Amino acid sequence: MAEPVRFYFDFSSPYGYLAAQRIDAIGAKHGREVAWRPFLLGVVFKKVGTGPLLELPLKGQYSFRDMHRSARLQGVPFKLPEPFPFSSVAASRGFYWAEANDPSRKKEVALALYHRIFGEGGSLAAPEEVADLMAGLGYDRATVLAGLGDAAVKDRLRVATDEALEAGVFGSPFFVADGEPFWGCDRMEHLDLWLERGGW
Amino acid sequence: MAEPVRFYFDFSSPYGYLAAQRIDAIGAKHGREVAWRPFLLGVVFKKVGTGPLLELPLKGQYSFRDMHRSARLQGVPFKLPEPFPFSSVAASRGFYWAEANDPSRKKEVALALYHRIFGEGGSLAAPEEVADLMAGLGYDRATVLAGLGDAAVKDRLRVATDEALEAGVFGSPFFVADGEPFWGCDRMEHLDLWLERGGW
Repeated sequence: MAEPVRFYFDFSSPYGYLAAQRIDAIGAKHGREVAWRPFLLGVVFKKVGTGPLLELPLKGQYSFRDMHRSARLQGVPFKLPEPFPFSSVAASRGFYWAEANDPSRKKEVALALYHRIFGEGGSLAAPEEVADLMAGLGYDRATVLAGLGDAAVKDRLRVATDEALEAGVFGSPFFVADGEPFWGCDRMEHLDLWLERGGW
Repeated sequence: MAEPVRFYFDFSSPYGYLAAQRIDAIGAKHGREVAWRPFLLGVVFKKVGTGPLLELPLKGQYSFRDMHRSARLQGVPFKLPEPFPFSSVAASRGFYWAEANDPSRKKEVALALYHRIFGEGGSLAAPEEVADLMAGLGYDRATVLAGLGDAAVKDRLRVATDEALEAGVFGSPFFVADGEPFWGCDRMEHLDLWLERGGW
């Protein structure tokens, strides 16, 4: 059986949010699983020597416009949280807690986290806010809140970030299909074609 | 009548080369002229504080792979010139010389310049090399070579670069349609849709 397509993203990445709405449909079209791998883009940015998109001169202004325009085209709600960027550590740990404790719902959890952040412009910077959201999904708030501090959960995120770096990931979203890397929402069409044709 | 779609590009930009093969067909589909505007990306990079794509850590390696892959998908020949990047001043002046002296052939000239650079991996860093190429298109070599040094031609390129900066251009290719900016080959589908729908 073919390896899952890897979907690397950061919960503070607007384009990661947009990609998350579409990636599983692309995988399914080609009978492929998609492994969701949230990681900490900030760690990668430090290695690569770049910074948050919206703070870059000219490109920041353009990207602000482009992400709203892309969301409208995709027909998904979009609102930047304040402050932005924010720390996505708690949200990422929420995902890995779900992956460890309720794996069949982990993507539902990821989409709910993303919806709060970029669909509603809400804050998930604090562990308490992540626990509140996950309580709304039916999990026990205190268990989740404790879980966000678990050494195993924290390690999982560290390992995922290291793996992303090793895979050459330098942005979010980033996809790897059968060893072939694709960066950005705007390369999902190439990814789709690559899966269809088995490369070109 | 609607304003032409503006197509900003640098002759040392691989993605500008790929865009140049497709942009007029997109314009024509919507009954729109496309104004080709080569400019000096290096000047813009200095203002924005970034550098040549292939020299960026991680992103450079990825982009090298992506530009070859994109060219194969598009079915156009692709070979990076050596050295790369190179100064695109002479090639840009060749374009503006043609625009001033033989406007109906200016896009043919641009495509021939681009073909030499990225289709064949040839050098056009020197004015003599540009003059040789243009002699092959039927122009008088000595006239072109003198023309590349004309104050009016040099000014035209300076003005085009200033205009690009004023328009918020920070990369190549970059398109502006009815005031709406689109950056990159991978946003040409959005540009196409924007022209079709008149925005969204």
